[in-house]
Amino acid sequence: MDDSKIFLPESEIPQAWYNINPDLPAPLQPPLNPATGEPLGPEDLAPIFPMALIEQEMSMEPWIDIPDDVMDVYKLWRPSPLHRAYRLEEHLDTPARIYYKNESVSPPGSHKPNTAVAQAYYNREEGVRRIVTETGAGQWGSALSFGCCVFGIEAEVYMVRISYDQKPYRRLLMQVWGADCYPSPSDRTEAGRSILAEDPDSPGSLGIAISEAVEKAAQDDEAKYALGSVLNHVLLHQTIVGLEALKQFEIADDYPDIVVGNVGGGSNFAGVCFPFVREKLAGRRDTQIIATEPTACPTLTRGIYHYDFGDTAELTPLLKMYTLGHKFIPAPIHAGGLRYHGDAPQLCLLVSQGVIEARALHQTDVFEAAVMWSRTEGHVPAPETAHGVRAAIDEALKCKETGEEKCILIGYSGHGHFDLAAYDNYLTGHLVDYELPQEKIDEAVADLPDVQ
Amino acid sequence: MDDSKIFLPESEIPQAWYNINPDLPAPLQPPLNPATGEPLGPEDLAPIFPMALIEQEMSMEPWIDIPDDVMDVYKLWRPSPLHRAYRLEEHLDTPARIYYKNESVSPPGSHKPNTAVAQAYYNREEGVRRIVTETGAGQWGSALSFGCCVFGIEAEVYMVRISYDQKPYRRLLMQVWGADCYPSPSDRTEAGRSILAEDPDSPGSLGIAISEAVEKAAQDDEAKYALGSVLNHVLLHQTIVGLEALKQFEIADDYPDIVVGNVGGGSNFAGVCFPFVREKLAGRRDTQIIATEPTACPTLTRGIYHYDFGDTAELTPLLKMYTLGHKFIPAPIHAGGLRYHGDAPQLCLLVSQGVIEARALHQTDVFEAAVMWSRTEGHVPAPETAHGVRAAIDEALKCKETGEEKCILIGYSGHGHFDLAAYDNYLTGHLVDYELPQEKIDEAVADLPDVQ
Repeated sequence: MDDSKIFLPESEIPQAWYNINPDLPAPLQPPLNPATGEPLGPEDLAPIFPMALIEQEMSMEPWIDIPDDVMDVYKLWRPSPLHRAYRLEEHLDTPARIYYKNESVSPPGSHKPNTAVAQAYYNREEGVRRIVTETGAGQWGSALSFGCCVFGIEAEVYMVRISYDQKPYRRLLMQVWGADCYPSPSDRTEAGRSILAEDPDSPGSLGIAISEAVEKAAQDDEAKYALGSVLNHVLLHQTIVGLEALKQFEIADDYPDIVVGNVGGGSNFAGVCFPFVREKLAGRRDTQIIATEPTACPTLTRGIYHYDFGDTAELTPLLKMYTLGHKFIPAPIHAGGLRYHGDAPQLCLLVSQGVIEARALHQTDVFEAAVMWSRTEGHVPAPETAHGVRAAIDEALKCKETGEEKCILIGYSGHGHFDLAAYDNYLTGHLVDYELPQEKIDEAVADLPDVQ
Repeated sequence: MDDSKIFLPESEIPQAWYNINPDLPAPLQPPLNPATGEPLGPEDLAPIFPMALIEQEMSMEPWIDIPDDVMDVYKLWRPSPLHRAYRLEEHLDTPARIYYKNESVSPPGSHKPNTAVAQAYYNREEGVRRIVTETGAGQWGSALSFGCCVFGIEAEVYMVRISYDQKPYRRLLMQVWGADCYPSPSDRTEAGRSILAEDPDSPGSLGIAISEAVEKAAQDDEAKYALGSVLNHVLLHQTIVGLEALKQFEIADDYPDIVVGNVGGGSNFAGVCFPFVREKLAGRRDTQIIATEPTACPTLTRGIYHYDFGDTAELTPLLKMYTLGHKFIPAPIHAGGLRYHGDAPQLCLLVSQGVIEARALHQTDVFEAAVMWSRTEGHVPAPETAHGVRAAIDEALKCKETGEEKCILIGYSGHGHFDLAAYDNYLTGHLVDYELPQEKIDEAVADLPDVQ
């Protein structure tokens, strides 16, 4: 039996991120100013992002060097291991080979710090003293807190109040890393105060939290804003995951026939798959790339490819993406990170072009897979991560039927240590599935902005 | 800069555990039957342990082969990485080199599965269908659940009721791995029922939970009992940690001048330090070995070296160890794993012989170190683990004064993902220190059994 974990030496960490922009099979339609309908220029973004990140957002350079200071921090947990899931294979009795790229080993426990650390670095380089952001259940907020902490700048996080109250663990993690975390709506912003005036007990929403964070960042000369997914520069930073995996497959003398992962905003999945998409687009390799999402929020499988706002409050630029409409409110599934109404434009373009396929999964099926995984491979995955696990199991079971010896790579985005209440729900039979009625979608996409 | 993580290939995992018994500088005094005062024979232990583990408990063989099936499971996370804590060194501005052996990467998040997996294996080999055990906050219970799960046998865990109710996360982890976890006292045993008859709202204690687990195991022909620390065979299984570290230091071309770690029952610390103690006892290397413990439960630093019961209820054999008396109830510090009144006999012997030194630490100092660690090295340590971190920082600061370039190894026993409430307590200024008055100790050791 070959080694079940393939480690890359630190000296072999890729020295540059991969920018997919120049390789895309069709031009990426630019973000638009919602007031004018005109493409955004760097100056539109300058109040809230540092210039280096704006340049990355629009860059057509295929490789962007990873700064030494970022690399030093990456080395706290990178390269992350590529594991072979021998015990799961045996349990399934499949001829498939299942690998997973394990991003759960980072300090915040997910892929998020790959970009949080980079964003904190570029902000510090431009003299920014404080980064303001929003967070739902706290995955992104904790990663950004960590990134700011290691570069000695302040993090100010607006956390959706209901999560702030009910899910204290990731908030505590932020505080361990020295961040200031406020429940949103707060009385610290105009946006927050106006909501509180109407409803002092508002549970908050990601839309409100975004409004608060953007407002604070725009008002404060020493502060900028940061986003944890969707944008090109975020996906860029995540490509370190797939680039490492490529090298690890070379060591293992193998190559994936299938790359699978979960899509919330798209940065985790883009991170693991874009380097393999590059090989596919260049005609060097043929790999099936499968994006998974919940049936309760089926953006890629049932959304419309159209310009839409990134947020409920209609504050952000318009992005061309698969969307369920920016007013769409998904059912309260346990994979909180997969409840976004849209997806990253780069990823959406590749889906629209047929390079990437998408699949929606029911959460009971996903948790069944998560428990099977925990009982064979040991490590307990995040509910988001378990979507990729489910699809990999399904593909491996197909191989069992056909006898095909396919090689499957899972983008294993994070651990489930802070999600055990969701497992409890599943194990005690309280988990329900949501199938979204078509009229709900029709309704939600009815007021998309009038831009193609 | 050299690599900050030293990985061992899986093929280099040590193939045998190290048994320190034959190398001890004085004979280890045997466990005694409390009724007769006579040394225990294998037959005394046979009702509750499988024979293979009883043999290991008493073995004088220096090396005991790790079975292939155990090795296959170890490979889910082993070899664990040896990290160089460059960022902490820089923060402290110390000439010391600080390494840590990271056992937090295991599925249950600590060193505990090193023995849980082995114990589950030997039980299965002898046809045992069910292992019964007790757990306090759930660290051991979750590890044993994982071990039983991978070998397809049942785990039945009696968890101290107050933890069962207040700290659901590790209980949920047990359930994810398929274990049955009951709050103790329960109505499933004589011991439990008699406590409940007196006090239906009893919060439970580790002593009561031990009684319940032992009773269940002794009554049930298909069940055995398992212990997560203190005993020789448990320490034996943990030596994989130090044996790997020895090989990793060879790769790093370095060697520790100091090995430091935390002691609860002693298995974590023995695991990391015994292979280095072996080198020291053989005169090949001179390493300072520092055991740390809380001032609230200063077993090694202020206890008496004497035979005592392992449990409050006086059910276990008598063990020769440093003890604060088996009726001692430590203050409710956050390092719940370090609240045991005694310590492993092998470790105690080495302390009594001056081979290992011991140090007691205040919990505020420990949490200060834990936060400094989290903000430099990223990973958030368990409160138990942070004891070793504190002592390493203290030693590194001494080096800063003297200019000595010492090499320090920390036994990093686990992560703090389930202990964030304790960090909250510290960060909000609610943590208090406990200095144990001497009369409390005098009182607690007054009724030690009359055996030298």
